[in-house]
Amino acid sequence: MSYGYNPYAQPGGAPPPGAFPPQQQQQQSPAYQWFAMVDRDRSGKINAEELQAALINGRGEKFSSHACKLMISMFDNDASGSIDVYEFEKLYNYINQWLQVFKTYDQDSSGHIEEGELTQAFTQMGFRFTPEFINFLVKKSDPNTHKEVSVDQFIVLCVQIQRFTEAFRQRDTQQNGTITIGFEDFLSVAIGCSY
Amino acid sequence: MSYGYNPYAQPGGAPPPGAFPPQQQQQQSPAYQWFAMVDRDRSGKINAEELQAALINGRGEKFSSHACKLMISMFDNDASGSIDVYEFEKLYNYINQWLQVFKTYDQDSSGHIEEGELTQAFTQMGFRFTPEFINFLVKKSDPNTHKEVSVDQFIVLCVQIQRFTEAFRQRDTQQNGTITIGFEDFLSVAIGCSY
Ligand SMILES: [Ca+2]
Ligand SMILES: [Ca+2]
Ligand SMILES: [Ca+2]
Ligand SMILES: [Ca+2]
Repeated sequence: MSYGYNPYAQPGGAPPPGAFPPQQQQQQSPAYQWFAMVDRDRSGKINAEELQAALINGRGEKFSSHACKLMISMFDNDASGSIDVYEFEKLYNYINQWLQVFKTYDQDSSGHIEEGELTQAFTQMGFRFTPEFINFLVKKSDPNTHKEVSVDQFIVLCVQIQRFTEAFRQRDTQQNGTITIGFEDFLSVAIGCSY
Repeated sequence: MSYGYNPYAQPGGAPPPGAFPPQQQQQQSPAYQWFAMVDRDRSGKINAEELQAALINGRGEKFSSHACKLMISMFDNDASGSIDVYEFEKLYNYINQWLQVFKTYDQDSSGHIEEGELTQAFTQMGFRFTPEFINFLVKKSDPNTHKEVSVDQFIVLCVQIQRFTEAFRQRDTQQNGTITIGFEDFLSVAIGCSY
Protein backbone atom coordinates (compact mmCIF):
# COMPACT_ATOMS: atom_id res chain seq x y z
CA MET A 1 0.00 0.00 0.00
CA SER A 2 1.07 3.57 -0.36
CA TYR A 3 -0.01 6.88 0.87
CA GLY A 4 1.15 10.34 0.21
CA TYR A 5 -0.96 13.31 -0.14
CA ASN A 6 -0.59 16.38 -2.21
CA PRO A 7 -3.76 18.19 -3.13
CA TYR A 8 -1.72 20.57 -5.23
CA ALA A 9 -0.22 17.81 -7.30
CA GLN A 10 -1.51 19.33 -10.49
CA PRO A 11 -0.20 22.87 -10.74
CA GLY A 12 -0.61 25.20 -13.65
CA GLY A 13 -3.53 26.85 -15.31
CA ALA A 14 -5.45 29.94 -14.33
CA PRO A 15 -7.63 29.92 -11.24
CA PRO A 16 -11.12 28.81 -12.25
CA PRO A 17 -14.03 31.20 -12.08
CA GLY A 18 -16.26 30.41 -9.18
CA ALA A 19 -16.42 31.60 -5.64
CA PHE A 20 -14.46 34.77 -6.20
CA PRO A 21 -15.23 37.45 -8.77
CA PRO A 22 -12.58 38.88 -11.08
CA GLN A 23 -10.53 41.70 -9.68
CA GLN A 24 -11.62 45.16 -10.58
CA GLN A 25 -8.63 47.27 -9.63
CA GLN A 26 -5.17 46.11 -10.49
CA GLN A 27 -3.54 48.09 -7.71
CA GLN A 28 -5.29 46.14 -4.96
CA SER A 29 -5.01 42.40 -4.59
CA PRO A 30 -8.26 40.46 -5.12
CA ALA A 31 -7.94 39.10 -1.61
CA TYR A 32 -7.91 42.61 -0.17
CA GLN A 33 -10.96 43.65 -2.17
CA TRP A 34 -12.73 40.49 -1.17
CA PHE A 35 -11.97 41.01 2.46
CA ALA A 36 -13.82 44.34 2.47
CA MET A 37 -16.86 42.72 0.87
CA VAL A 38 -16.93 39.67 3.13
CA ASP A 39 -16.40 41.64 6.35
CA ARG A 40 -20.04 42.69 6.52
CA ASP A 41 -19.99 44.16 10.01
CA ARG A 42 -16.75 46.08 9.28
CA SER A 43 -15.08 44.56 12.33
CA GLY A 44 -11.78 44.13 10.50
CA LYS A 45 -12.09 40.40 11.07
CA ILE A 46 -13.90 37.69 9.17
CA ASN A 47 -15.64 34.90 11.02
CA ALA A 48 -17.13 31.63 9.76
CA GLU A 49 -20.61 33.12 9.29
CA GLU A 50 -19.30 35.95 7.13
CA LEU A 51 -17.24 33.51 5.09
CA GLN A 52 -20.26 31.24 4.68
CA ALA A 53 -22.35 34.12 3.35
CA ALA A 54 -19.75 34.67 0.60
CA LEU A 55 -19.22 31.18 -0.77
CA ILE A 56 -21.44 29.13 -3.06
CA ASN A 57 -20.82 25.55 -4.16
CA GLY A 58 -21.69 23.93 -7.50
CA ARG A 59 -25.20 23.12 -6.28
CA GLY A 60 -25.92 26.80 -5.73
CA GLU A 61 -25.90 26.14 -1.98
CA LYS A 62 -23.89 27.94 0.67
CA PHE A 63 -20.74 26.19 1.82
CA SER A 64 -21.48 24.17 4.95
CA SER A 65 -20.79 25.91 8.25
CA HIS A 66 -18.54 22.96 9.04
CA ALA A 67 -16.37 23.71 6.00
CA CYS A 68 -16.23 27.42 6.81
CA LYS A 69 -15.31 26.86 10.46
CA LEU A 70 -12.67 24.34 9.44
CA MET A 71 -11.09 26.76 6.98
CA ILE A 72 -11.19 29.71 9.37
CA SER A 73 -9.59 27.56 12.07
CA MET A 74 -6.71 26.68 9.75
CA PHE A 75 -5.66 30.32 9.46
CA ASP A 76 -6.89 31.63 12.80
CA ASN A 77 -3.64 31.53 14.73
CA ASP A 78 -4.94 32.94 18.01
CA ALA A 79 -8.07 30.71 17.99
CA SER A 80 -10.32 33.77 18.21
CA GLY A 81 -12.77 32.36 15.69
CA SER A 82 -12.02 35.08 13.15
CA ILE A 83 -9.16 36.07 10.87
CA ASP A 84 -7.63 39.39 9.87
CA VAL A 85 -6.83 40.62 6.37
CA TYR A 86 -3.36 39.02 6.28
CA GLU A 87 -4.73 35.65 7.35
CA PHE A 88 -7.59 36.08 4.89
CA GLU A 89 -5.16 36.50 2.00
CA LYS A 90 -3.74 33.07 2.77
CA LEU A 91 -7.22 31.61 3.06
CA TYR A 92 -8.25 33.22 -0.21
CA ASN A 93 -5.33 31.60 -2.00
CA TYR A 94 -6.04 28.32 -0.26
CA ILE A 95 -9.66 28.27 -1.40
CA ASN A 96 -8.71 29.18 -4.95
CA GLN A 97 -6.21 26.34 -5.02
CA TRP A 98 -8.91 23.96 -3.85
CA LEU A 99 -11.30 25.22 -6.51
CA GLN A 100 -8.64 24.53 -9.11
CA VAL A 101 -7.98 21.03 -7.77
CA PHE A 102 -11.71 20.34 -7.65
CA LYS A 103 -12.17 21.47 -11.23
CA THR A 104 -9.37 19.20 -12.38
CA TYR A 105 -11.00 16.17 -10.80
CA ASP A 106 -14.53 17.09 -11.89
CA GLN A 107 -13.86 15.68 -15.33
CA ASP A 108 -17.41 15.89 -16.65
CA SER A 109 -17.76 19.46 -15.29
CA SER A 110 -20.92 18.49 -13.44
CA GLY A 111 -19.96 20.72 -10.51
CA HIS A 112 -19.61 17.64 -8.31
CA ILE A 113 -17.21 14.81 -7.86
CA GLU A 114 -18.89 11.48 -8.34
CA GLU A 115 -17.58 8.14 -7.13
CA GLY A 116 -15.52 7.38 -10.24
CA GLU A 117 -13.99 10.83 -10.21
CA LEU A 118 -13.17 10.51 -6.51
CA THR A 119 -11.43 7.20 -7.18
CA GLN A 120 -9.30 8.85 -9.83
CA ALA A 121 -8.64 11.86 -7.61
CA PHE A 122 -7.26 9.78 -4.77
CA THR A 123 -5.23 7.64 -7.16
CA GLN A 124 -3.63 10.78 -8.54
CA MET A 125 -2.97 12.01 -5.00
CA GLY A 126 -1.07 8.76 -4.41
CA PHE A 127 -3.63 6.83 -2.39
CA ARG A 128 -4.79 3.33 -3.13
CA PHE A 129 -8.18 2.90 -1.57
CA THR A 130 -10.60 0.02 -1.98
CA PRO A 131 -13.90 0.66 -3.80
CA GLU A 132 -15.70 0.03 -0.49
CA PHE A 133 -13.76 2.81 1.19
CA ILE A 134 -14.37 5.28 -1.64
CA ASN A 135 -18.06 4.41 -1.44
CA PHE A 136 -17.98 5.02 2.31
CA LEU A 137 -16.39 8.45 1.76
CA VAL A 138 -19.06 9.45 -0.76
CA LYS A 139 -21.85 8.37 1.59
CA LYS A 140 -20.25 10.19 4.50
CA SER A 141 -19.82 13.38 2.45
CA ASP A 142 -23.26 13.22 0.85
CA PRO A 143 -25.58 11.73 3.48
CA ASN A 144 -28.72 12.58 1.51
CA THR A 145 -28.21 11.14 -1.96
CA HIS A 146 -24.97 9.11 -1.50
CA LYS A 147 -23.95 10.07 -5.03
CA GLU A 148 -21.74 13.10 -5.29
CA VAL A 149 -19.34 15.33 -3.37
CA SER A 150 -19.66 19.11 -3.59
CA VAL A 151 -16.62 21.37 -3.41
CA ASP A 152 -17.06 22.30 0.25
CA GLN A 153 -17.55 18.64 1.15
CA PHE A 154 -14.49 17.78 -0.93
CA ILE A 155 -12.35 20.30 0.96
CA VAL A 156 -13.50 18.93 4.34
CA LEU A 157 -12.86 15.37 3.19
CA CYS A 158 -9.38 16.09 1.87
CA VAL A 159 -8.37 18.07 4.99
CA GLN A 160 -9.57 15.21 7.21
CA ILE A 161 -7.70 12.61 5.17
CA GLN A 162 -4.61 14.81 5.08
CA ARG A 163 -4.57 15.20 8.87
CA PHE A 164 -5.28 11.59 9.69
CA THR A 165 -2.77 10.39 7.10
CA GLU A 166 -0.09 12.60 8.64
CA ALA A 167 -0.90 11.27 12.13
CA PHE A 168 -0.81 7.71 10.81
CA ARG A 169 2.43 8.21 8.92
CA GLN A 170 4.17 9.55 12.02
CA ARG A 171 3.34 6.33 13.83
CA ASP A 172 3.98 3.95 10.93
CA THR A 173 7.70 3.74 11.59
CA GLN A 174 8.16 0.58 9.53
CA GLN A 175 6.16 2.08 6.67
CA ASN A 176 4.15 -1.08 6.18
CA GLY A 177 0.71 0.49 6.37
CA THR A 178 -0.05 -0.80 9.86
CA ILE A 179 0.40 0.85 13.23
CA THR A 180 0.12 -0.31 16.82
CA ILE A 181 -1.48 2.37 18.93
CA GLY A 182 -2.57 2.72 22.56
CA PHE A 183 -5.98 3.86 23.68
CA GLU A 184 -5.15 7.39 24.79
CA ASP A 185 -2.99 8.12 21.76
CA PHE A 186 -5.76 6.79 19.54
CA LEU A 187 -8.27 9.13 21.19
CA SER A 188 -5.84 12.05 20.92
CA VAL A 189 -5.48 11.58 17.18
CA ALA A 190 -9.15 10.94 16.57
CA ILE A 191 -10.33 13.93 18.63
CA GLY A 192 -7.40 16.22 17.92
CA CYS A 193 -7.56 15.95 14.15
CA SER A 194 -11.32 16.13 13.87
CA TYR A 195 -13.00 19.46 14.00
CA MET B 1 -5.66 0.54 31.91
CA SER B 2 -9.39 0.30 31.69
CA TYR B 3 -12.09 1.83 29.66
CA GLY B 4 -15.80 1.55 29.81
CA TYR B 5 -18.20 4.29 29.29
CA ASN B 6 -21.55 4.96 30.74
CA PRO B 7 -22.64 8.57 30.88
CA TYR B 8 -25.71 7.54 32.79
CA ALA B 9 -23.75 5.86 35.54
CA GLN B 10 -25.33 8.04 38.19
CA PRO B 11 -29.09 7.66 37.96
CA GLY B 12 -31.62 9.15 40.32
CA GLY B 13 -32.72 12.65 41.20
CA ALA B 14 -35.08 14.92 39.38
CA PRO B 15 -34.09 16.43 36.02
CA PRO B 16 -32.33 19.71 36.67
CA PRO B 17 -33.93 22.97 35.65
CA GLY B 18 -32.23 24.37 32.63
CA ALA B 19 -32.83 24.08 28.94
CA PHE B 20 -36.41 22.98 29.20
CA PRO B 21 -39.20 24.79 31.06
CA PRO B 22 -41.55 22.97 33.44
CA GLN B 23 -44.53 21.33 31.85
CA GLN B 24 -47.73 23.28 31.93
CA GLN B 25 -50.32 20.68 31.07
CA GLN B 26 -50.14 17.25 32.65
CA GLN B 27 -52.02 15.58 29.82
CA GLN B 28 -49.35 16.39 27.25
CA SER B 29 -45.76 15.25 27.59
CA PRO B 30 -43.21 18.05 28.00
CA ALA B 31 -41.46 16.82 24.88
CA TYR B 32 -44.60 17.27 22.83
CA GLN B 33 -45.17 20.80 24.14
CA TRP B 34 -41.54 21.62 23.50
CA PHE B 35 -41.70 20.35 19.98
CA ALA B 36 -44.42 22.84 19.09
CA MET B 37 -42.34 25.70 20.50
CA VAL B 38 -39.07 24.67 18.87
CA ASP B 39 -40.62 24.02 15.45
CA ARG B 40 -40.72 27.70 14.57
CA ASP B 41 -41.62 27.34 10.90
CA ARG B 42 -44.36 24.78 11.71
CA SER B 43 -42.87 22.29 9.27
CA GLY B 44 -43.54 19.37 11.59
CA LYS B 45 -39.80 18.74 11.71
CA ILE B 46 -37.04 20.24 13.80
CA ASN B 47 -33.66 20.97 12.29
CA ALA B 48 -30.34 21.92 13.90
CA GLU B 49 -30.97 25.67 13.57
CA GLU B 50 -34.34 25.43 15.33
CA LEU B 51 -32.80 23.30 18.06
CA GLN B 52 -29.94 25.76 18.45
CA ALA B 53 -32.39 28.64 18.90
CA ALA B 54 -33.96 26.77 21.84
CA LEU B 55 -30.93 25.75 23.89
CA ILE B 56 -28.78 27.87 26.19
CA ASN B 57 -25.68 26.70 28.01
CA GLY B 58 -24.41 27.79 31.43
CA ARG B 59 -22.59 30.76 29.89
CA GLY B 60 -25.85 32.16 28.56
CA GLU B 61 -24.66 31.29 25.06
CA LYS B 62 -26.47 29.28 22.43
CA PHE B 63 -25.40 25.67 22.09
CA SER B 64 -22.82 25.35 19.31
CA SER B 65 -24.17 24.47 15.90
CA HIS B 66 -21.79 21.51 16.00
CA ALA B 67 -23.48 20.16 19.14
CA CYS B 68 -26.96 20.68 17.68
CA LYS B 69 -26.11 19.00 14.39
CA LEU B 70 -24.50 16.12 16.23
CA MET B 71 -27.57 15.58 18.40
CA ILE B 72 -30.01 15.88 15.49
CA SER B 73 -27.94 13.37 13.50
CA MET B 74 -28.15 10.85 16.33
CA PHE B 75 -31.94 10.69 16.09
CA ASP B 76 -32.39 11.54 12.42
CA ASN B 77 -32.84 8.04 11.05
CA ASP B 78 -33.38 8.98 7.41
CA ALA B 79 -30.48 11.51 7.38
CA SER B 80 -32.82 14.28 6.26
CA GLY B 81 -31.24 16.81 8.64
CA SER B 82 -34.40 17.14 10.70
CA ILE B 83 -36.40 15.04 13.13
CA ASP B 84 -40.10 14.48 13.72
CA VAL B 85 -41.98 14.62 17.00
CA TYR B 86 -41.32 10.96 17.89
CA GLU B 87 -37.60 11.32 17.27
CA PHE B 88 -37.67 14.61 19.17
CA GLU B 89 -39.10 12.93 22.24
CA LYS B 90 -36.05 10.68 22.34
CA LEU B 91 -33.74 13.64 21.82
CA TYR B 92 -35.53 15.58 24.57
CA ASN B 93 -34.95 12.76 27.03
CA TYR B 94 -31.37 12.40 25.84
CA ILE B 95 -30.60 16.08 26.43
CA ASN B 96 -32.23 16.02 29.85
CA GLN B 97 -30.13 13.02 30.82
CA TRP B 98 -27.02 14.89 29.73
CA LEU B 99 -28.04 17.95 31.73
CA GLN B 100 -28.41 15.72 34.77
CA VAL B 101 -25.03 14.09 34.22
CA PHE B 102 -23.45 17.48 33.70
CA LYS B 103 -24.94 18.85 36.90
CA THR B 104 -23.62 15.87 38.83
CA TYR B 105 -20.08 16.50 37.63
CA ASP B 106 -20.25 20.30 38.00
CA GLN B 107 -19.59 19.98 41.70
CA ASP B 108 -19.12 23.68 42.43
CA SER B 109 -22.25 24.53 40.40
CA SER B 110 -20.26 27.01 38.32
CA GLY B 111 -22.20 26.02 35.20
CA HIS B 112 -19.00 24.62 33.69
CA ILE B 113 -16.82 21.61 34.14
CA GLU B 114 -13.28 22.60 34.98
CA GLU B 115 -10.23 20.40 34.64
CA GLY B 116 -10.46 18.84 38.11
CA GLU B 117 -14.15 18.11 37.65
CA LEU B 118 -13.47 16.58 34.23
CA THR B 119 -10.83 14.31 35.75
CA GLN B 120 -13.33 13.12 38.33
CA ALA B 121 -16.05 12.73 35.71
CA PHE B 122 -13.96 10.42 33.55
CA THR B 123 -12.77 8.47 36.56
CA GLN B 124 -16.37 7.86 37.55
CA MET B 125 -17.17 6.82 33.97
CA GLY B 126 -14.44 4.18 34.29
CA PHE B 127 -11.66 5.85 32.30
CA ARG B 128 -8.12 6.34 33.53
CA PHE B 129 -6.65 9.23 31.60
CA THR B 130 -3.37 11.01 32.19
CA PRO B 131 -3.45 14.64 33.36
CA GLU B 132 -1.92 15.62 30.00
CA PHE B 133 -4.79 14.03 28.12
CA ILE B 134 -7.43 15.68 30.32
CA ASN B 135 -5.68 19.00 29.75
CA PHE B 136 -5.72 18.36 26.00
CA LEU B 137 -9.47 17.67 26.12
CA VAL B 138 -10.16 20.91 28.00
CA LYS B 139 -8.09 22.91 25.50
CA LYS B 140 -9.79 21.23 22.57
CA SER B 141 -13.26 21.89 24.02
CA ASP B 142 -12.51 25.46 25.10
CA PRO B 143 -10.12 26.87 22.50
CA ASN B 144 -10.46 30.42 23.79
CA THR B 145 -9.72 30.28 27.50
CA HIS B 146 -8.52 26.66 27.92
CA LYS B 147 -10.19 26.51 31.30
CA GLU B 148 -13.69 25.11 31.30
CA VAL B 149 -16.11 22.94 29.38
CA SER B 150 -19.69 24.10 28.84
CA VAL B 151 -22.58 21.64 28.69
CA ASP B 152 -22.81 21.58 24.90
CA GLN B 153 -19.04 21.10 24.62
CA PHE B 154 -19.29 18.36 27.24
CA ILE B 155 -21.94 16.50 25.26
CA VAL B 156 -19.85 16.68 22.07
CA LEU B 157 -16.76 15.52 23.94
CA CYS B 158 -18.51 12.58 25.60
CA VAL B 159 -20.17 11.46 22.36
CA GLN B 160 -16.81 11.57 20.57
CA ILE B 161 -15.08 9.60 23.31
CA GLN B 162 -17.95 7.13 23.44
CA ARG B 163 -17.77 6.48 19.69
CA PHE B 164 -14.02 6.21 19.47
CA THR B 165 -13.88 4.03 22.58
CA GLU B 166 -16.40 1.65 21.06
CA ALA B 167 -14.42 1.50 17.81
CA PHE B 168 -11.22 0.88 19.77
CA ARG B 169 -12.77 -1.75 21.98
CA GLN B 170 -14.02 -3.72 18.97
CA ARG B 171 -10.46 -3.95 17.69
CA ASP B 172 -8.77 -4.54 21.06
CA THR B 173 -9.38 -8.27 21.02
CA GLN B 174 -6.77 -9.00 23.69
CA GLN B 175 -8.16 -6.21 25.87
CA ASN B 176 -4.70 -4.88 26.64
CA GLY B 177 -5.33 -1.27 25.65
CA THR B 178 -3.38 -1.48 22.39
CA ILE B 179 -4.57 -2.20 18.88
CA THR B 180 -2.88 -2.85 15.57
CA ILE B 181 -4.73 -1.15 12.77
CA GLY B 182 -4.26 -0.70 9.03
CA PHE B 183 -4.35 2.61 7.21
CA GLU B 184 -7.78 2.35 5.60
CA ASP B 185 -9.44 1.00 8.74
CA PHE B 186 -7.82 3.80 10.73
CA LEU B 187 -9.22 6.39 8.31
CA SER B 188 -12.65 4.75 8.39
CA VAL B 189 -12.83 5.01 12.16
CA ALA B 190 -11.41 8.51 12.33
CA ILE B 191 -13.68 9.88 9.60
CA GLY B 192 -16.69 7.68 10.30
CA CYS B 193 -16.97 8.49 13.99
CA SER B 194 -16.26 12.20 13.69
CA TYR B 195 -19.06 14.45 12.72
CA1 LIG C 1 -16.33 40.81 10.67
CA1 LIG D 1 -18.35 15.42 -11.89
CA1 LIG E 1 -39.18 22.97 11.41
CA1 LIG F 1 -17.71 23.60 37.77
